[in-house]
Amino acid sequence: MNQTPQQDSRGPVDVVIMAAGKGTRMKSKLPKVLHRLGGRALLAHVTGTAARIGARDVVVITGHGAAEVEASLNSGIEGVTLRFARQEPQLGTGHAVQQAAPLLPDDGTVVVLSGDVPLIGEDTLRALIAASAGSKLALLTIEFDDPSGYGRVIRAAGQGEVTAIVEHKDATEAQRAVREIYSGVMAVPARLLKGWLARLDNKNAQGEYYLTDVVKFAAADGVPVVAHITTDALQVAGINSPAQLAALERAWQLRQANALMEQGVRLADPSRFDLRGTLDCGADVEIDVNCVFEGMVSLGEGVRIGANCVIANARIETGAVIHPFTHIEGEKAGVTVGAGSLIGPFARLRPGAQLGAEVHIGNFVEVKNSTLAAGAKANHLAYLGDATVGERVNYGAGSITANYDGANKHRTVIGDDVHVGSNCVLVAPITIGAGGTIGGGSTINKSTEPGALTVARGKQVSFPNWKRPQKK
Amino acid sequence: MNQTPQQDSRGPVDVVIMAAGKGTRMKSKLPKVLHRLGGRALLAHVTGTAARIGARDVVVITGHGAAEVEASLNSGIEGVTLRFARQEPQLGTGHAVQQAAPLLPDDGTVVVLSGDVPLIGEDTLRALIAASAGSKLALLTIEFDDPSGYGRVIRAAGQGEVTAIVEHKDATEAQRAVREIYSGVMAVPARLLKGWLARLDNKNAQGEYYLTDVVKFAAADGVPVVAHITTDALQVAGINSPAQLAALERAWQLRQANALMEQGVRLADPSRFDLRGTLDCGADVEIDVNCVFEGMVSLGEGVRIGANCVIANARIETGAVIHPFTHIEGEKAGVTVGAGSLIGPFARLRPGAQLGAEVHIGNFVEVKNSTLAAGAKANHLAYLGDATVGERVNYGAGSITANYDGANKHRTVIGDDVHVGSNCVLVAPITIGAGGTIGGGSTINKSTEPGALTVARGKQVSFPNWKRPQKK
Amino acid sequence: MNQTPQQDSRGPVDVVIMAAGKGTRMKSKLPKVLHRLGGRALLAHVTGTAARIGARDVVVITGHGAAEVEASLNSGIEGVTLRFARQEPQLGTGHAVQQAAPLLPDDGTVVVLSGDVPLIGEDTLRALIAASAGSKLALLTIEFDDPSGYGRVIRAAGQGEVTAIVEHKDATEAQRAVREIYSGVMAVPARLLKGWLARLDNKNAQGEYYLTDVVKFAAADGVPVVAHITTDALQVAGINSPAQLAALERAWQLRQANALMEQGVRLADPSRFDLRGTLDCGADVEIDVNCVFEGMVSLGEGVRIGANCVIANARIETGAVIHPFTHIEGEKAGVTVGAGSLIGPFARLRPGAQLGAEVHIGNFVEVKNSTLAAGAKANHLAYLGDATVGERVNYGAGSITANYDGANKHRTVIGDDVHVGSNCVLVAPITIGAGGTIGGGSTINKSTEPGALTVARGKQVSFPNWKRPQKK
Repeated sequence: MNQTPQQDSRGPVDVVIMAAGKGTRMKSKLPKVLHRLGGRALLAHVTGTAARIGARDVVVITGHGAAEVEASLNSGIEGVTLRFARQEPQLGTGHAVQQAAPLLPDDGTVVVLSGDVPLIGEDTLRALIAASAGSKLALLTIEFDDPSGYGRVIRAAGQGEVTAIVEHKDATEAQRAVREIYSGVMAVPARLLKGWLARLDNKNAQGEYYLTDVVKFAAADGVPVVAHITTDALQVAGINSPAQLAALERAWQLRQANALMEQGVRLADPSRFDLRGTLDCGADVEIDVNCVFEGMVSLGEGVRIGANCVIANARIETGAVIHPFTHIEGEKAGVTVGAGSLIGPFARLRPGAQLGAEVHIGNFVEVKNSTLAAGAKANHLAYLGDATVGERVNYGAGSITANYDGANKHRTVIGDDVHVGSNCVLVAPITIGAGGTIGGGSTINKSTEPGALTVARGKQVSFPNWKRPQKK
Repeated sequence: MNQTPQQDSRGPVDVVIMAAGKGTRMKSKLPKVLHRLGGRALLAHVTGTAARIGARDVVVITGHGAAEVEASLNSGIEGVTLRFARQEPQLGTGHAVQQAAPLLPDDGTVVVLSGDVPLIGEDTLRALIAASAGSKLALLTIEFDDPSGYGRVIRAAGQGEVTAIVEHKDATEAQRAVREIYSGVMAVPARLLKGWLARLDNKNAQGEYYLTDVVKFAAADGVPVVAHITTDALQVAGINSPAQLAALERAWQLRQANALMEQGVRLADPSRFDLRGTLDCGADVEIDVNCVFEGMVSLGEGVRIGANCVIANARIETGAVIHPFTHIEGEKAGVTVGAGSLIGPFARLRPGAQLGAEVHIGNFVEVKNSTLAAGAKANHLAYLGDATVGERVNYGAGSITANYDGANKHRTVIGDDVHVGSNCVLVAPITIGAGGTIGGGSTINKSTEPGALTVARGKQVSFPNWKRPQKK
Repeated sequence: MNQTPQQDSRGPVDVVIMAAGKGTRMKSKLPKVLHRLGGRALLAHVTGTAARIGARDVVVITGHGAAEVEASLNSGIEGVTLRFARQEPQLGTGHAVQQAAPLLPDDGTVVVLSGDVPLIGEDTLRALIAASAGSKLALLTIEFDDPSGYGRVIRAAGQGEVTAIVEHKDATEAQRAVREIYSGVMAVPARLLKGWLARLDNKNAQGEYYLTDVVKFAAADGVPVVAHITTDALQVAGINSPAQLAALERAWQLRQANALMEQGVRLADPSRFDLRGTLDCGADVEIDVNCVFEGMVSLGEGVRIGANCVIANARIETGAVIHPFTHIEGEKAGVTVGAGSLIGPFARLRPGAQLGAEVHIGNFVEVKNSTLAAGAKANHLAYLGDATVGERVNYGAGSITANYDGANKHRTVIGDDVHVGSNCVLVAPITIGAGGTIGGGSTINKSTEPGALTVARGKQVSFPNWKRPQKK
C-alpha cells in the first residue's frame, strides 16, 4: 500500500539508509543488509517502509558488498527516486551520511534509517517527522534496562532538553548510567543536516566521524533537539549476528501470527508458524503446528492446513483440506487448489499445478505443470507432469506420465471420466479419449479412442513348483 | 471415569453451562463453545467435567448457533440427564440462568459453569460445592495481577465477607483496585438461586441482567457468601479470541506433556508435543520432537516414535519403532502395529491396517484396510489396499494392489511366504498361493497356485545404436 | 580433543563417577546414567569430560543395572585407565566413594563427579582442581534462589570458611535459609579423602553414609575447605525425572544452537533445532526450522537445509540444497551428497548412498548403498539399491532396481548417459551399457549393449465401447 508522497505542511521527506556495513559477526559472504528476515532482505524491509511513509528520494549508502546490495534493489522502489552513494572507506556514521548529502535536495526533511534495523514502523517515523516539524532535529530514542554498548541520550538537568549523544566507548560513568539510548534514527531538515555534516570531525576514541555529533551542533546553533521515545524495542532492534537475526525472526513471526489470529485465523501454535511473505486468509481458516508459508499464499474460507506443511505461492480455495506433510511450491507459475479439494498427506504440488474443485491428490503423488478438472483423483504414488486431466478422471496408483523423452517435454491429455489403472506409463505426447479405460500395468504410447479399454501387457504364465534362489 | 451421582449430605448436584455466547472476537461461523482445545470442543470439556463430579442434571443454555451446539451433544452425557434451555435474545448472564431455572430441581446444589472455560477442574468444583454446603452461595475466585476487565469481588472491610461482585464497567476506582475477581463459577442451593433470579433487574451500565447480582441478594437475605480462591489461572481461563485459544492450547498441551513425563514417558521436547485425545503409554516409551497424537492412541512398552509423526487412533505394540515422518490415521477402523514392527520413515497407515508382529513398512508405502501377518514386509514405494497378506511375505518395491475396478473394491489375498517382485500389479479379486513368486513388472489378474513362479512380461528386445530424440 | 594427562605442580588427577543410582523417578528399566542427552548417555558426557581434563584413572561406581552401565563403557575411555567399583547395597554417597577408594592411587587429586550431572564443564573442574591445590578440600557450590532439597554450604560467621555441608533433611531452619548449595562435585587429595572415608558413620536422618561429612573431618583436622562457586546452573544440573531430562535437553540444544550461530550458521529457529552428535559447518550454512541432526554430520559452505529434515551421519558438500522433508541416515556406511546436488523434498538417502556433484534426487525417491556419478538424476518415485549409476544418467519416475531375489542382493550397473524410462524394473545383477535407453514400463533382466534402445512391453490393444464394471 504505497501512499502518495507526503505533501503536507512539513514538505517532502527524503530517506537515507545506511547499508555500507560489513557485519563481521554475521561471518557471512552475504552483505549484512541482504540477510533475510521473514524471507525478505533486511534492506528491503527498510526500503518498503520508506516507500510507505511517502518518501520522495531514497539514498542508500553502500560500501561492503556494494554491487550486490545495489543489485538487490535493481527493480527500484515503487513511487520513489532511488539513488546510491558509495562510502569507501568507511569512516563512521557521519562520514556515511556525508556521502549521501550531495544527493539530497535542500527543501526536504531527511530521515536517517539503518539497513540492518528492519522493523522500524511507519507510524513511528511519521511521529518522528512530525516532531521534527520542518525545523528541529528529532531523534528516535528508547529506554533500555541494559543500555550497555549504545549511545546515551544526554539531557540538560537530567530530564531536560537533549544536549548530546555520547557513544558508549566515549561515555563517562555518569553518562553510562543513562538508560535512554539513541536508536540511530533521526529526522532533520536537510538544510540543517548539510551544514552540520560539514562540521564533523573524528576526534574521539574510535577516530570516526559520528553522525551523532550533529546534536552538539544543533545545541550550539540553538536548534531544538527533540526526542521521540518509542517503547517498542523490536522497531529499533539491529542485526549484528546470526543469533540476533534468529531472535528478531522469531519476534517478527510472533507478530505476524498474532495479526493473523486477530483476523480470526486459528493457529495451533503461534510459536511454530513461519510466514515469509504474505498470507491472505478467509474466515475459519485453521493452520496446524509447524507450517511454513512463503511468497504469496491465499487460503479461502474454511481451509484447513495440517501439521508440517510447506506452502509457497499458492491459492487454496474455499474448504480445501491440506493434510500433513504436504509440500506446495508454486514459484512463478503458481499453484491453485480448487474448492473442496483434498490434498496429501505426503503430496507435492509443483509450479503450474492447477487443480479444480473437489480434486483429490493423495500420498506420494507429484503434480507439475498440469491441469486437473473438477473431481479428478490421483490418490496414490503417482506422477502427473505436463498433463491435462479431465473431470472425474481416476488416475491409478503408481501411474506415471512419461513427459520427457530425454530431450523434450511433451503433453499428456486425459479426457473426462477416464480410468487409468495402476502402474501405467502414459508416453507423451498422447491423448486418452474420454471415458476410456487403461488396464493396470500398461505402457501406452499411442493415443486411445473415447470409451475404449486399452491394455498393453505380457501374458501371464506360471511355472509350478518353482525353486527360489537360496541364500548364499 | 464417571462417578456415581453424589449422594452425600449436601444432596444432588445439578450443573448449568452457559453456552449461548457468540464469541464475536473469534471471527468464526462456528459457535464459540464448539471451538476445539486439545482436539475436543470447549463445551465437551465442560460437560465431561460435569459428568465426572457426578452431576445429576446438566442444563446447557444455548443461543448463538443453538442448533449446532445442541447437535454437538446429541449423543448425550454418560450418567447425566441432559437438557437444553434456549436464551433468545441474550440479555446477560442472569437472564441466561433464568432460562435454565424451570429445568432445575429444587432440591439440588446448582453449579454454574461456562462453556468457554474448558479447564475447570473436578477437585476445584468439589471444593466449591463443599464450600456451598447446601446452604451458602459459594463463588470461585482468583487473584490476578491485572484484574482489568473482570468482575471484582467486593468484601466487607477489605478482607471480610463477600458483599458484592461489581462488573469492571460498573466499578469505582477503588473497586477496580481490587485484585480478587470472580471466575464466573458458583455453587448455590437451587431454592436460593431461583428466588434471587426472580429479583434480578437490568439497571446498570450494560443494561443487562447480571447473575452476579445474586451476591447482593444473598447479603440482603443474610445468606452467607463464601469464596473459594483458586490459584490455578488455567482452570478459570476463558476463551474469547483465537490468540486466547492458542495460548490455552499450549498450556493444556504442556500439562499433558508433564503428566506423561511424570509417568515415565520420555519426550524430546515437551513444547513440541500435541495430544488431542488420549495417549496410553507403557514403560520406556520415547517420543521425539514435533509429534501429534489424535483420538485414542496406545503405545506399548519400549515403543519409540520418531520426529514429526502424526498418529491417530492406533495401537502400537511393544517395542515397535515408528520412524520419522510416519502418518497413521486409524479413524473408526483403527490401526494396529504389531510388536517389534518397524514403520517408516514416510509410511502411511490408514484405517484398517492391521499389522502383526515384526512387520516392516518402509518409505512411501501406503497400507489401507489390510491385514499383514507376522514378518511381512513392504519396504519401498508400494500400495496395499484391501489385502490379506500372509506371514513372511516380501512385497516388492513399487507393487500395487489394484483393488478398485472403477466401481467396486475387491480383495487381494497373498499367501504365506509369497515373494512379489517389483512394480507388480495384483488385480483384485485375486489370490497368490502360498510360497509363490511373482516376477518383477508383472500385472497379475488370475489367481496363482502355491509355490508357482508367475510372470507376465513383454519380451526384452534391443535396437542397437539407437538415436535419441534431440532437444528442439 | 583429549589432552595429555595433567602433570603440573598439583600432580595427577583421578576421577570418581557416581553411577550406581536407580533413578526411580525415571520410571524406566534403563539405568539412570544411560538415559541420553543430546543423543549420548549421561554417563558418556561425564566420562568424556573426565578425559578432557586429563584424568589418569577413572573409577565408575556402579550398582543398579551395573552390568549394563559397565557394558556401555566397554570400549574404554581414550587415554584413561578405566575401572569399575560395585556398590551393593547402596548406603549413601560416602559409602559409594568408599567402594572406589581401594582403586585410587594415593598420590593424586580425586575429583568426585556424578554420572547424572552431564554438563559439568572442563574449565570449572580445572578451576576446582586448582582451588584444591594439592592440599585442600575444594567444593563446587552454587547459589540457588530456591535451595530446597539441596545440601546447604555452612560457613563460619555466615560468609567465612566452609565448616559443613548439611543435607536438607537434616538442616535446621536457619541452615535451610542458606542459598549456597553443594553441587555434589569436589576435588580433594586422595590421601586426605581416604582417611576421612574411614571415619564416616550413618548417624543421621537418612541412616546413610554421607560423603559430605568429609567437610566436618577436614575442619576438625585443620584442612582448609574452599568453595569454588559457579554461576552456571546447567553445569551442576542433575537428572532425576523425564521432565528434568527434557528441560536439560532443551537447555543443551540451545547452547549448541548458540555456538553454531556464533560460528555464523544461520538457524531459522534455535528453539526448533536438535543436534545429537557433532555438526561441522562451512560458511553461510542455513538451516530451516525443525531439523534434527544425529551422529557426525558435516555441511559444506553455502549448504541449505530445508524445514523438517532429519539427517544422520552424512557429509553434504558445498552448495548442496536439501529440500524439506528429507531423511538422510548414513549409519556406519555414511552418506555423501556431492557439491551442488539438489535433494528432496521427500527424499530418503540410506547408508552407502554416495552422490557425486550436481546429482538430483527428487520426491519419493530412496537411495541405498548406491553410487551416483556427477549429474545423475532420479527425480520422482524411484528406488536405487545396490546400484552404480554413471554420469548424467536420467533414471525415470517409478523405476526400481530389483536388487533382492528373495535370498541375495545383487548389483545394478548403469553406464554413463543412460536414460531409464518410467516404471522400469532393472533385475539385478544387470548392466545397462553406457548411452543406452530403456523404454518406459520395461522389466529388464538381461544386460544391454551401450547405445541400444531396449524395451520389454506388451503390445497395446484396444477394445472399443468397453463397458466398465458397475457399482454394486
